Amino acid sequence: MFQSRAFSGLLTDLYELTMAAGYVQNHFDPRATFELFVRQLPRHRNYLVAAGLDQALDLLENVHFTSEEVSYVRDLPVFHQVGSEFFDYLSRFHFAGDVWALPEGTIFFPGEPLLRVTAPIADAQLVETSLLSIMHLQTLIASKAARVTGAADDRPVIEFGSRRAHGVEASVLAARAAFIAGCTGTSNVYAGHHFGIPVYGTQAHSWVMAHEDEAEAFSSFLDVFPEQATLLVDTYDVRAAIDKIIARGRIPSGVRLDSGDVLADSFWARQRLDEVGWRDVQIFVSGDLDENRIEALLRSGAPIDAFGVGTALSTSADAPSLSVIYKLVEVELDQRIRGTAKFSADKQTYPGRKQVFRLRDAKGAYSGDIIGVEDELFPSAELLLIPVMRNGRRLEPAKQDPAACVREAQARFLANRAHLPEHILGTAPTDPPYSVSHSARLKLLSEEARQSLLRAAHL
Amino acid sequence: MFQSRAFSGLLTDLYELTMAAGYVQNHFDPRATFELFVRQLPRHRNYLVAAGLDQALDLLENVHFTSEEVSYVRDLPVFHQVGSEFFDYLSRFHFAGDVWALPEGTIFFPGEPLLRVTAPIADAQLVETSLLSIMHLQTLIASKAARVTGAADDRPVIEFGSRRAHGVEASVLAARAAFIAGCTGTSNVYAGHHFGIPVYGTQAHSWVMAHEDEAEAFSSFLDVFPEQATLLVDTYDVRAAIDKIIARGRIPSGVRLDSGDVLADSFWARQRLDEVGWRDVQIFVSGDLDENRIEALLRSGAPIDAFGVGTALSTSADAPSLSVIYKLVEVELDQRIRGTAKFSADKQTYPGRKQVFRLRDAKGAYSGDIIGVEDELFPSAELLLIPVMRNGRRLEPAKQDPAACVREAQARFLANRAHLPEHILGTAPTDPPYSVSHSARLKLLSEEARQSLLRAAHL
Repeated sequence: MFQSRAFSGLLTDLYELTMAAGYVQNHFDPRATFELFVRQLPRHRNYLVAAGLDQALDLLENVHFTSEEVSYVRDLPVFHQVGSEFFDYLSRFHFAGDVWALPEGTIFFPGEPLLRVTAPIADAQLVETSLLSIMHLQTLIASKAARVTGAADDRPVIEFGSRRAHGVEASVLAARAAFIAGCTGTSNVYAGHHFGIPVYGTQAHSWVMAHEDEAEAFSSFLDVFPEQATLLVDTYDVRAAIDKIIARGRIPSGVRLDSGDVLADSFWARQRLDEVGWRDVQIFVSGDLDENRIEALLRSGAPIDAFGVGTALSTSADAPSLSVIYKLVEVELDQRIRGTAKFSADKQTYPGRKQVFRLRDAKGAYSGDIIGVEDELFPSAELLLIPVMRNGRRLEPAKQDPAACVREAQARFLANRAHLPEHILGTAPTDPPYSVSHSARLKLLSEEARQSLLRAAHL
Repeated sequence: MFQSRAFSGLLTDLYELTMAAGYVQNHFDPRATFELFVRQLPRHRNYLVAAGLDQALDLLENVHFTSEEVSYVRDLPVFHQVGSEFFDYLSRFHFAGDVWALPEGTIFFPGEPLLRVTAPIADAQLVETSLLSIMHLQTLIASKAARVTGAADDRPVIEFGSRRAHGVEASVLAARAAFIAGCTGTSNVYAGHHFGIPVYGTQAHSWVMAHEDEAEAFSSFLDVFPEQATLLVDTYDVRAAIDKIIARGRIPSGVRLDSGDVLADSFWARQRLDEVGWRDVQIFVSGDLDENRIEALLRSGAPIDAFGVGTALSTSADAPSLSVIYKLVEVELDQRIRGTAKFSADKQTYPGRKQVFRLRDAKGAYSGDIIGVEDELFPSAELLLIPVMRNGRRLEPAKQDPAACVREAQARFLANRAHLPEHILGTAPTDPPYSVSHSARLKLLSEEARQSLLRAAHL
């Protein structure tokens, strides 16, 4: 959500409310810790990029239930036998817990907590669904954008996917996440305004079609934008369109190819433009691009100056979801801390509050991560999780400027990427993958939790 | 967007603004008609389901630019040479056009307009991006949900995908779209409240893990929800969990299997529950389900009473986007109407205002559609596009109750589905596909537009 104060407590799954009711009515109120992480990499992926934290903290600072919303909950059939204590709890509810997180723009791997929430168990449970949905969207898109910007090999990539992002909120937040992972800008004006992201775009096919004559369409656009016109040349015939522009003699800032054989047309266009001395006229390519198509075009030497990438980026088309989960890892009962985990056959998790320790080789490149217990020490390792919220308040004295926050995240991503081993950076899946191990202490804690469950089961 | 009055005019691509500026500064202001349609079916799909119209009309009724937003636009480098007329236009902007649309819940096919917008060309252009993004999301999810609910063959399907929908807005609107296409309910409480959709859900793995003993976790939940508890039995070991519940003797309303071999476990669970006379205890299955998995389970005779479907549904995982486009089809100039179309090699469109005519066979089943010119007549055909907005105001005297609107859309979908030929309804792609043809008059209009373009090109 890009509008603070709009966070309704109802933006959650019903079972978060029933469980919270269970905890409140049973007077079971230990502090609990949940960790949000990605279970596994999508196919063909080598790494992930953390994004969405600023919006997640907005949620935690603002989520509440109006009295009308509490009435709605009270009237649901499932709550008919639940006493008033729970509804009083909802009316008073605000999030007052502690949060640790990976800063936005951090490159990370499956199993590594993106976010760790410690709060009274009902509170921490209530915010699960929204936290997942918020962190998932931007982490998903940033992880995709990293591949696209990597494939473009320092050529600018503009995020063009608003129309097919999953709704208007997703379109704005996809633009934000794409910028964090190296995009140069977006077509989304709201994202430009709200997050200070550079915005790009000039004309669509409809502009050309609205005029009876294509050459006239180009001229009338240049009348209004004499120095800022990237003309779209594929409405009818790319080469005829470029010839018409040249014949009229007014130099646009660029031409855009959006369909057809863009490889052949880009070569033809560059040569034709150079012939008339229009060497500064840029060739901009868009239309069903993704990281693989961009790599193939550049491998063929296509003289393309910049790319516009839409649907594939704004929906993460090859992997439209990540296996993000929010798992209970610890319950604090009577001064006793109990690590919790799930041990079903196909979905094991690890107990206890964790930290991610990142190691470097002699040249400074990342050489591997260790997922360990929160207070472990690994000399010279970087600690990736940092405290970001205490008692429901951000640790930054005030909320940061949204634009500064996004720029800082992009800088962090670019610095992270510069330290990632070459073989992890490619668009093809790498074998062996980046090394992520669990510390001996974490494994021991896990085995203890398992034994303790087995004992309980046989009581 | 599920909150009216929140529609910023900036929720658009920059090129909509530059084109609008071009039209305003050049005093080019004909009425124009744009049609929104899907170019082609995703792989494996046979039909689509229209959804999102109510939110699209909300946008059109409420979209505007604040003075602060106009200042932001004015300060963008691309607009530095643009005169004040355009910024005055933005300040005054509200949508005052006419709209025809397919009612929500209508089954439709590629090339058939979902929405037809007629307005001064700059106005119709400005709203393109948001209209696409709004119509795309719900049409995408409804089209997927239709497959899932079809596969479940009259067993209830609950939409469970909020956590991995693309953001909190998408989670609410995915719940709405899924309900329209036959889901029984959703886990999303906000969608329940706002759209009157039944909500479902009781407990997660964290509830079980928070208690030291699994049997104790079940009992304490039953204490609070004695008549509404569906107990989650796969945290550690499904069969041991069911035995624990039986041993304690309190009858839950259901058990939920969320991982592991749900086929074998569902047979085992049904038999075990029946043995102790708990025939009314329902078996609810969730966890990485989609239409194919549901079909396979039911084909194997799995005794499953209801399904919860998450990520695959809320992201339309096999096809996370539709090729929706918004194309200029007509410009009204000096009493002369000019049909417009795109004739590039791979992306042809048809000119002129269209209507979709649906034909039935002798038994009442849909036998095919004709995409024709707006005022054509095909005896006994149903006209699918209806007027929904005139001069920027809905034709319904007042905005309908959101819950009534959604129920009506679901009823329309179910009625439409009942008339669809059997072979189109399956989850496998059908050959031949549903018959959709273009009328002779539309083809003629298209050829005239092409000839007229060719003439203009050779002037």
